[in-house]
Amino acid sequence: MAQKGDLMTARSDIRVLDATIRDGGLVNNFMFSDEFINALYRTNVKAGIDYMEFGYKASKEMFDVNKFGKWKFCSEEDIRAVVGDNNSDMKISVMADVGRCDYKTDIIDKKDSVIDMVRVATYVHQMPSAIHMIEDAKEKGYEVTCNIMAISNARESDMEQALEMVGQSSADGIYIVDSYGALYPEQIRSLADKYMETAEKYGKFIGIHAHNNQQLAFANTIEATARGVSFLDATMMSMGRGAGNCAMELLIGFLKNPKYNIFPVLKFIENQMLPLKESGAVWGYDIPYLLTGRLNQHPSAAIDYTKEARTDYADFYTDLLDK
Amino acid sequence: MAQKGDLMTARSDIRVLDATIRDGGLVNNFMFSDEFINALYRTNVKAGIDYMEFGYKASKEMFDVNKFGKWKFCSEEDIRAVVGDNNSDMKISVMADVGRCDYKTDIIDKKDSVIDMVRVATYVHQMPSAIHMIEDAKEKGYEVTCNIMAISNARESDMEQALEMVGQSSADGIYIVDSYGALYPEQIRSLADKYMETAEKYGKFIGIHAHNNQQLAFANTIEATARGVSFLDATMMSMGRGAGNCAMELLIGFLKNPKYNIFPVLKFIENQMLPLKESGAVWGYDIPYLLTGRLNQHPSAAIDYTKEARTDYADFYTDLLDK
Repeated sequence: MAQKGDLMTARSDIRVLDATIRDGGLVNNFMFSDEFINALYRTNVKAGIDYMEFGYKASKEMFDVNKFGKWKFCSEEDIRAVVGDNNSDMKISVMADVGRCDYKTDIIDKKDSVIDMVRVATYVHQMPSAIHMIEDAKEKGYEVTCNIMAISNARESDMEQALEMVGQSSADGIYIVDSYGALYPEQIRSLADKYMETAEKYGKFIGIHAHNNQQLAFANTIEATARGVSFLDATMMSMGRGAGNCAMELLIGFLKNPKYNIFPVLKFIENQMLPLKESGAVWGYDIPYLLTGRLNQHPSAAIDYTKEARTDYADFYTDLLDK
Repeated sequence: MAQKGDLMTARSDIRVLDATIRDGGLVNNFMFSDEFINALYRTNVKAGIDYMEFGYKASKEMFDVNKFGKWKFCSEEDIRAVVGDNNSDMKISVMADVGRCDYKTDIIDKKDSVIDMVRVATYVHQMPSAIHMIEDAKEKGYEVTCNIMAISNARESDMEQALEMVGQSSADGIYIVDSYGALYPEQIRSLADKYMETAEKYGKFIGIHAHNNQQLAFANTIEATARGVSFLDATMMSMGRGAGNCAMELLIGFLKNPKYNIFPVLKFIENQMLPLKESGAVWGYDIPYLLTGRLNQHPSAAIDYTKEARTDYADFYTDLLDK
């Protein structure tokens, strides 16, 4: 597949999605202050961000509303308390996990909702359920994407079949998701080419959601972009599970479209992200995440290890190898 | 130029150079403890590192020996106090800056030295002086490289001429040096192809020295590698001026040659690098370095800003734009 775009011009098909609340919420159980969320919304609008993801549509049957902040559930009222009718150019998205939400009841008709896009997150072995959710959200009137997670551990033949299944579904877009931060740019380019083939065959767009275990989230995001991927996830100061994501400040610094503005992002980081970090929220590149990423493992062991503030990296590595 | 190597096999032409003392010394004026240096030497030998750079051969006339640690000057005795006759498979390098060293007297004949390689660091406008230094070191019996710095700010026609000049010199290798951390992988691949043309024409090797201003030091290093670049600079925990360099732990985690061993690197980081960081040495990716990198500026303004522990990123950015 040929390179798309270059370093001098702007591509009109690029969309930036701020996933700070959704992936960052995995760090602090979605316990953000209202002030933080209001400031983030205003910042994203000013910065020219295309989509802001407010969080998950998780099942209130399965998850205790007292143990998580409201953005794990994203009720219509809670979003509207921040955005009103969202009189801005920015769209609003939520994520719904296969098997962890009551989508039939909790996702209402688009005509009654301020949400624009539903992103269905699935593992490759859950594809039939994902397709059900995609069709449900599409029928209700939403833009819909399918985010196939943990693909660095999926078999290629399964991935091909999964792409074909989403291709034939009503989904508008498909995301490359490097959940473990295990993939190198070379692999991302090759995956992007494969996803783009499906995209061109079925008239869909491709997105990318990267993790920073090996300090490659930004690099992998822009390398995928150059292969035609157009929906780009980023988070403020890279806040997200474990090593975090592609940093918004890096991505906005890279993109050439004059609609994007790094200045409000910098203001938000100094006013909101630094206090959040100082209050004890822990994320970002660190040796334990590099090690799980390199070994293509879920970051959970590294997250536990980091929480204990351990620094016996060599022993941790031996433990990982012993698993 | 075709891709060289792949993600499954090991390339026998790869050489890893540990530049922790040399580039890291720019953080703490080369004030490392003897224990640190001894431990680093043992670590590098155990980890299978190919070259260890001890520091600079700076002029004692120009620089006050009381203001800098001994590794800014790298006397033969000081290196031998650590390595003896260096009975290991690892080679030893030093860097000599054009215009900041007394190379005629301070670089002695190779037969009397434990140093194996001299790396001549130059700006593109100093090439004639660099060539003199290269020929001097080569006549004395050393392996010699030419490290052309700050190339993100050099005119392409000047760079082409500089490459031709080094090509015709006795230098064994030429380094791509992204001093400002300003270059994206796409640009690095294109530079690597250009340098490799010279390498193939004149029988030299190409190296890369990256900076991490935009979290791209590791990505740029492995992307250059895939284009045929073979001498790879890295530093422990990425210690180096400003945003630092390609992290050794990332690079060793990536390379497939079984001679490389990440375990002693992890031990060294927990035993030596963490205490060094806790003692107040400051380096590594941070917003101010991203901003100078993005603007293709020398990191000095960001270094000063970071030293003052300021966090008014938006104002700092405005200041940079106003320069």
